[in-house]
Amino acid sequence: MRIESDSLGQMEVPDQAYYGIHTMRALENFAITKDHVNANLVKALIQIKAAAAKANKGAGTLDTDVADAILTATDELLSQPVDYENMFPLDPIQGGAGTSMNMNANEVIANVALTKSGHEKGEYQYINPNDHVNKSQSTNDVFPSAGKLALIHIVKPLMLEIEKLMAALGSKAEEFEDVYKMGRTQLQDAVPMTLGNSFHAYLKPLKRDLNRIDKAQADLHVLNLGGSAIGSGINVSRYYQEHIIPELNAVTGLELEQASDLFDATQNLDSFLQLSAALKSLAVDLSKIANDLRLLSSGPRSGLNEINLPARQAGSSIMPGKVNPVIPEVVNQVAFEVMGNDITVTNAVEAGQLELNAFEPVMLYRLFASVDHLTQVLKTFRENAITGITPNEERLEQDIDLSISYTTAMAAIIGYQKASNLAKQALKTNRPLRELAEETGEFTEEQLDEVFAVDKIVKNARTPEHGLVFKNS
Amino acid sequence: MRIESDSLGQMEVPDQAYYGIHTMRALENFAITKDHVNANLVKALIQIKAAAAKANKGAGTLDTDVADAILTATDELLSQPVDYENMFPLDPIQGGAGTSMNMNANEVIANVALTKSGHEKGEYQYINPNDHVNKSQSTNDVFPSAGKLALIHIVKPLMLEIEKLMAALGSKAEEFEDVYKMGRTQLQDAVPMTLGNSFHAYLKPLKRDLNRIDKAQADLHVLNLGGSAIGSGINVSRYYQEHIIPELNAVTGLELEQASDLFDATQNLDSFLQLSAALKSLAVDLSKIANDLRLLSSGPRSGLNEINLPARQAGSSIMPGKVNPVIPEVVNQVAFEVMGNDITVTNAVEAGQLELNAFEPVMLYRLFASVDHLTQVLKTFRENAITGITPNEERLEQDIDLSISYTTAMAAIIGYQKASNLAKQALKTNRPLRELAEETGEFTEEQLDEVFAVDKIVKNARTPEHGLVFKNS
Amino acid sequence: MRIESDSLGQMEVPDQAYYGIHTMRALENFAITKDHVNANLVKALIQIKAAAAKANKGAGTLDTDVADAILTATDELLSQPVDYENMFPLDPIQGGAGTSMNMNANEVIANVALTKSGHEKGEYQYINPNDHVNKSQSTNDVFPSAGKLALIHIVKPLMLEIEKLMAALGSKAEEFEDVYKMGRTQLQDAVPMTLGNSFHAYLKPLKRDLNRIDKAQADLHVLNLGGSAIGSGINVSRYYQEHIIPELNAVTGLELEQASDLFDATQNLDSFLQLSAALKSLAVDLSKIANDLRLLSSGPRSGLNEINLPARQAGSSIMPGKVNPVIPEVVNQVAFEVMGNDITVTNAVEAGQLELNAFEPVMLYRLFASVDHLTQVLKTFRENAITGITPNEERLEQDIDLSISYTTAMAAIIGYQKASNLAKQALKTNRPLRELAEETGEFTEEQLDEVFAVDKIVKNARTPEHGLVFKNS
Amino acid sequence: MRIESDSLGQMEVPDQAYYGIHTMRALENFAITKDHVNANLVKALIQIKAAAAKANKGAGTLDTDVADAILTATDELLSQPVDYENMFPLDPIQGGAGTSMNMNANEVIANVALTKSGHEKGEYQYINPNDHVNKSQSTNDVFPSAGKLALIHIVKPLMLEIEKLMAALGSKAEEFEDVYKMGRTQLQDAVPMTLGNSFHAYLKPLKRDLNRIDKAQADLHVLNLGGSAIGSGINVSRYYQEHIIPELNAVTGLELEQASDLFDATQNLDSFLQLSAALKSLAVDLSKIANDLRLLSSGPRSGLNEINLPARQAGSSIMPGKVNPVIPEVVNQVAFEVMGNDITVTNAVEAGQLELNAFEPVMLYRLFASVDHLTQVLKTFRENAITGITPNEERLEQDIDLSISYTTAMAAIIGYQKASNLAKQALKTNRPLRELAEETGEFTEEQLDEVFAVDKIVKNARTPEHGLVFKNS
Repeated sequence: MRIESDSLGQMEVPDQAYYGIHTMRALENFAITKDHVNANLVKALIQIKAAAAKANKGAGTLDTDVADAILTATDELLSQPVDYENMFPLDPIQGGAGTSMNMNANEVIANVALTKSGHEKGEYQYINPNDHVNKSQSTNDVFPSAGKLALIHIVKPLMLEIEKLMAALGSKAEEFEDVYKMGRTQLQDAVPMTLGNSFHAYLKPLKRDLNRIDKAQADLHVLNLGGSAIGSGINVSRYYQEHIIPELNAVTGLELEQASDLFDATQNLDSFLQLSAALKSLAVDLSKIANDLRLLSSGPRSGLNEINLPARQAGSSIMPGKVNPVIPEVVNQVAFEVMGNDITVTNAVEAGQLELNAFEPVMLYRLFASVDHLTQVLKTFRENAITGITPNEERLEQDIDLSISYTTAMAAIIGYQKASNLAKQALKTNRPLRELAEETGEFTEEQLDEVFAVDKIVKNARTPEHGLVFKNS
Repeated sequence: MRIESDSLGQMEVPDQAYYGIHTMRALENFAITKDHVNANLVKALIQIKAAAAKANKGAGTLDTDVADAILTATDELLSQPVDYENMFPLDPIQGGAGTSMNMNANEVIANVALTKSGHEKGEYQYINPNDHVNKSQSTNDVFPSAGKLALIHIVKPLMLEIEKLMAALGSKAEEFEDVYKMGRTQLQDAVPMTLGNSFHAYLKPLKRDLNRIDKAQADLHVLNLGGSAIGSGINVSRYYQEHIIPELNAVTGLELEQASDLFDATQNLDSFLQLSAALKSLAVDLSKIANDLRLLSSGPRSGLNEINLPARQAGSSIMPGKVNPVIPEVVNQVAFEVMGNDITVTNAVEAGQLELNAFEPVMLYRLFASVDHLTQVLKTFRENAITGITPNEERLEQDIDLSISYTTAMAAIIGYQKASNLAKQALKTNRPLRELAEETGEFTEEQLDEVFAVDKIVKNARTPEHGLVFKNS
Repeated sequence: MRIESDSLGQMEVPDQAYYGIHTMRALENFAITKDHVNANLVKALIQIKAAAAKANKGAGTLDTDVADAILTATDELLSQPVDYENMFPLDPIQGGAGTSMNMNANEVIANVALTKSGHEKGEYQYINPNDHVNKSQSTNDVFPSAGKLALIHIVKPLMLEIEKLMAALGSKAEEFEDVYKMGRTQLQDAVPMTLGNSFHAYLKPLKRDLNRIDKAQADLHVLNLGGSAIGSGINVSRYYQEHIIPELNAVTGLELEQASDLFDATQNLDSFLQLSAALKSLAVDLSKIANDLRLLSSGPRSGLNEINLPARQAGSSIMPGKVNPVIPEVVNQVAFEVMGNDITVTNAVEAGQLELNAFEPVMLYRLFASVDHLTQVLKTFRENAITGITPNEERLEQDIDLSISYTTAMAAIIGYQKASNLAKQALKTNRPLRELAEETGEFTEEQLDEVFAVDKIVKNARTPEHGLVFKNS
Repeated sequence: MRIESDSLGQMEVPDQAYYGIHTMRALENFAITKDHVNANLVKALIQIKAAAAKANKGAGTLDTDVADAILTATDELLSQPVDYENMFPLDPIQGGAGTSMNMNANEVIANVALTKSGHEKGEYQYINPNDHVNKSQSTNDVFPSAGKLALIHIVKPLMLEIEKLMAALGSKAEEFEDVYKMGRTQLQDAVPMTLGNSFHAYLKPLKRDLNRIDKAQADLHVLNLGGSAIGSGINVSRYYQEHIIPELNAVTGLELEQASDLFDATQNLDSFLQLSAALKSLAVDLSKIANDLRLLSSGPRSGLNEINLPARQAGSSIMPGKVNPVIPEVVNQVAFEVMGNDITVTNAVEAGQLELNAFEPVMLYRLFASVDHLTQVLKTFRENAITGITPNEERLEQDIDLSISYTTAMAAIIGYQKASNLAKQALKTNRPLRELAEETGEFTEEQLDEVFAVDKIVKNARTPEHGLVFKNS
């Protein structure tokens, strides 16, 4: 044990701990979730500390040897997995607007730098968490910036997974281009279409969601670094203010920008809400697709049974032979979680007061969950459901043949009212519609051929990217 | 035009207006929704004013003639429909924690009392909105109390409609007691049951919701009247404090209570949230029922088509003969609205600060919408959908016959694994399950008779209130 | 009374009614809210009907005289206010995916056209709601398109109000450029800034929200007209499909586009969700500003009392002289409503199934409320609160003078730990910080002058658009 | 590695794994959260398996030695911590309505039973996961029942923590019984009260929330065990159906009941929603208290500064001496999380279809988070904030002395209008109110003594449980 002290007094810190007294206090204060802080957030904090050390070194506000010691420490920390036990033990939901996380990083970097340069942990007279590692910074600018970096980082694989799912849906759209099926509105038989149309229609909103997420992550590139406390830039040199972002770009390989109004960028976290909204839109669209797939694969005997999902596991502990749509079901559940997380983020963003929003920790905690869980679920959705879908062509055909949807085309010839009566009669008598239509004497044979030409109806549909539209015309 | 004045200055008030300067200012400040304040809220305010006048008269804090004039006015106002033009023109979403609505009532009552007793409108030296009509009161206690009265009032017809829907579902449960159908889990064929079981299962959560709503409305009977500003009871006599609730009970016929901690009852509006939660639960359960009915009636040719909803209107402007589940669809939509309103109420309750929650107006506005819309939609759900539902017995039977669900009973004899293989084989070959089972040589004929005895499976189900359970045993 | 009939039977329709049997049935089915359909939605439907008549005329799929009669009717209807009694009596929450609203428009247009061309109402053999007015259309494409047109229309004044509020905040930012104040984080004294910084920081998120709303409304310009049922284009000529959007652009003056995948555009309503998300972001940002203003104006004696909101009405029915922040309070309440509406929209969008989302009516109903209420509340916020805000300069100065925030600048000289001790001592002894600092002997006079140079701190802040940054450098 | 097989084929299972092929498949399908299934859910599943083995043994549907082997296994599993590596490795968000979790338990129990009775893992011919461990059960009844048991279990410590917080608040209410303070409405000075009143008012809604949670957990005691698939009771003997609950009561020490309608209890999960609503109410009430405490402790120089929260950690990385309300802030954040979780639960409950709700896993996942995080945050709130709160009596007194709130009592003597003018004058001139009142000549000295008798106002307040009301009367 070593003794550390702060303005509230002294505490014993375990010898092996690289964190210090601030982290110790935070551990006592916040034992909420049993989860750890997201590793990407830890890394982002360290990246910022590295960039700050460089900018301070350039500004002359840190001695070269102190700056270099800090940089050696950040290099080492960035090259290894996060050590949750001796370095970053904190809970992701914490009060203090991220101060504990920021101080945790300051303390760990200071102690790594100290031990690497021949000192003992805790000899902060040489390298100080506040005066050196945190130089020119405030939690106010460091923490939301680190949150943005972490989100930018984890949104990338999410976007990749969306693209992969889109590609998988696109392949299916082509594969099912000539598989005719009954289209439904309000779960009632409507008019024919192709199964390819269905999959192409699934793909399109994902493309828009991808754009929304891309826009949201682009907007996260605007940081308030250099603003220090409340965006005022207090204790920050002009040199630092101008170099911190370029230095961070060098460290991260990103193209980050400094906010034009640092007060605004410190207190207003609408960019987090924008990301959450984009994620919610993705969740909603995925949930709709999952619902459709569960519906279309319902049965096998007493359901629609138009498509088959790949059998992924025995469906029931008691009902032999049952195979359930377990993959779409997990998609729905992640969607519900993301929809709930959006409320948490919304409430947290709304709760900002005056010059700061102190509720970033929970905001990030749930945003990380949304992004990560969506990424994972997209993967299983694609690999374990979408790519293996097959149509039940017999059933699909039968559904079209039996349908009364041809009355829509008939109405163009004999009017809506008479066509309605034919439909009613067909349903009541269970007789074939064409037979009934012939009996009316209102159609020529050619007209009836036209009416029942599912091909034509289907080819009239407009989905140019998919190459289906006007294809034969 | 007459001139009225307050501490901010003077304003012209239209001659025909019974409201005064406070209402005039509020009209300028709040022009948000174009809706009117709920009539039940207006009535509740006037009832409280009447009870207050009686309590003040008893306490001697109002002269008898002033009190009587006020009571004449409240009697008249309670006996007629709300005059939104000349009396209560305000917007339901308003700042000021309901002060505008309270002052609106004070002004109207004062002016009706004045004109009824031979004075001119605005001659507040005789009967004053603040000093007389509002005597011993504060918006802090009057407004939330009026909100509670109004909610208690409109929840009654809602509860009646729930009971009527339960009765209708109960009738259907009995009617369909012997209609067998395939039960489904995760939209996949599971094991047989009766359509009566389905409707009985719809009825049960509504009973619990009814209890939740009943508990919530009972808790709304606790009022903070007598607390005046912040619950302190300032400017309130002991007599008034002890008599205001009994007087209000006499006026309303209710059994209201005074809160034991008036500060608490003034600042904490969790009882509104409790009602909103109960309404949301009802909405969620109704939405589930509506979803099921839309699913079971899907088709007619390419869907489950197990039940028929009454045809209520032509379903499509273009597709002749299409009949859509329009009534369940409107149920879903009201459910979605109520789920959204719960968020508004939640946010408003959370936003209370220190000794008051200033956000009651929007809370009440959305709660009134939730209660009223649910009441209306329950009525159309029952009358135009539930009572007219008929089963498609042919289809229901066919679904059971074709199903592989008998393997569940087989598993009890030959084990889960072998039963699974039989199921798989049946689905693959499309051959009857019994035939395949016979070929295995693992069953006696008696066992197979048992396995395929849908009757027995169905009769084993436990729904005692419905009289189905153990009925034949 | 006249008799009309449809496939479900006959009904009596009042003589004066321009609507017909479909609307009659819908009135019976949907009596939920007592509200009317938004006038902009009605107008948008009629605009689409006019464009469709033109495209059908061009295509030769409507006789010229029928098309012209329809156009005469739509012209007349567009030139007058909506007649809710005899023409458009329906409830905004309705089942049927908007079919009732679409048929209502078809019936009214048919009957206006009939009476204008010398026929009786109901003589649909001449001009038929389905066969003529609805020609080449389906509710599936007409209704969501009309919803988009209506939203585009009402979002314009909202955007204008946002711009006006931004301008008002910008003026205040300039006006308060030299008014120093204490900045706070987590409601605790932090470091100095200007009141101008505060108002500039309020303005910035609104600019981003404006962009989000603008993007959302731009995306609403993509319509599925020409898709008729489910996007299939059934019963739609190639000519119509290519001309309906240009004709609608001519009617509306907008630059609308046809969706590239009409199935997608029929079933996926994520563009409504995108608008709702943008409105929610605005609501959240407004709520934060309103919260801040209520906080900064708290008091007058026992609060922060740093700014004065204009007195808009007497604040209390019982507490004389009390003036409350009624305008920010109404802003909060609309924000809460919009946040709730977003849930309704989210649920409704998620609930789409297969080729259609049947829940557009409630989606539009709440989106219209969100847009309209935000527009109205922005106006009162600007006119009745923002423009009249004045600072309490004496109090603002006093807050800075007494603060211990100078220790932040001291830390740059003597280190964080020693500066902490000074802060602690100052709070404990209530002695001036400068005095205590001098006693330490660690500062030169020049250093202390620098530390207490509020000017410099304040001028270092970076808000270039506002001209404050580096201004004196 | 050993080989296991199911109806989908064969898989290699690691030798050390007690789980089997079903769990293996689920691991491939669901890799979403990186979290483990809640230990209480695992324990609850095993408790149910133990009770089922006893009931099956009694019914004669399991051989005694198989039943006993199972019971030996469940005893051992219940006596040790959950082994997540070799036994229960699954993800809490999973498709399949909990089938994977149920089968995981079946497999682990079978393999523990096998190894304990001299067999090898995987020799399911002796003890079979489906045919023996799962005997008379279905995931349909086992999984929701286990969820309820787990929730009942973890709600207990939550309720205990609520009671402890109530006690702490109650102590503070007594401690601060004679500390006068200014009461505020809408953040504006209203009338005096005591700090004891404030803390008593915090305590009361928690009492109601405790009751709501207690009612919710009581309702969770109703289980659908014995219903097996869909509630039908298929493959369940009469004996088992009657004994499963008593056996489970013996195992758990609880007083559980069997649902009267097992179909209902299988498909409707409104009881989970009820718990979530009660937790949300608690969250909302806690958030309001946290907001108040942050507000009252704001400053220290430029805020209300009426109370002191215990200093728990250095508040800032850059601003020395700053102490922030970190504990209330973490309370707010957990509240926001719980409010979001309620949406997830709501959506999942609404999404149930026909005879089952397949979305229990995510429902339980978020409910467990809500309950656990609330329990933890209540503890830190009490220990690290509430118990250490002290009043700043000087500031509190000063606030009352300066206030214009005495005009409320004046109004009872000279009328609202004249009192308003006095208030206005006092604010404008900054002169003492009593002086100005004396100059009007409208008050006797006795009346003014009465008006300024803060004592009397404060003593009039009604909080009987706290003993404050009418105390001196």
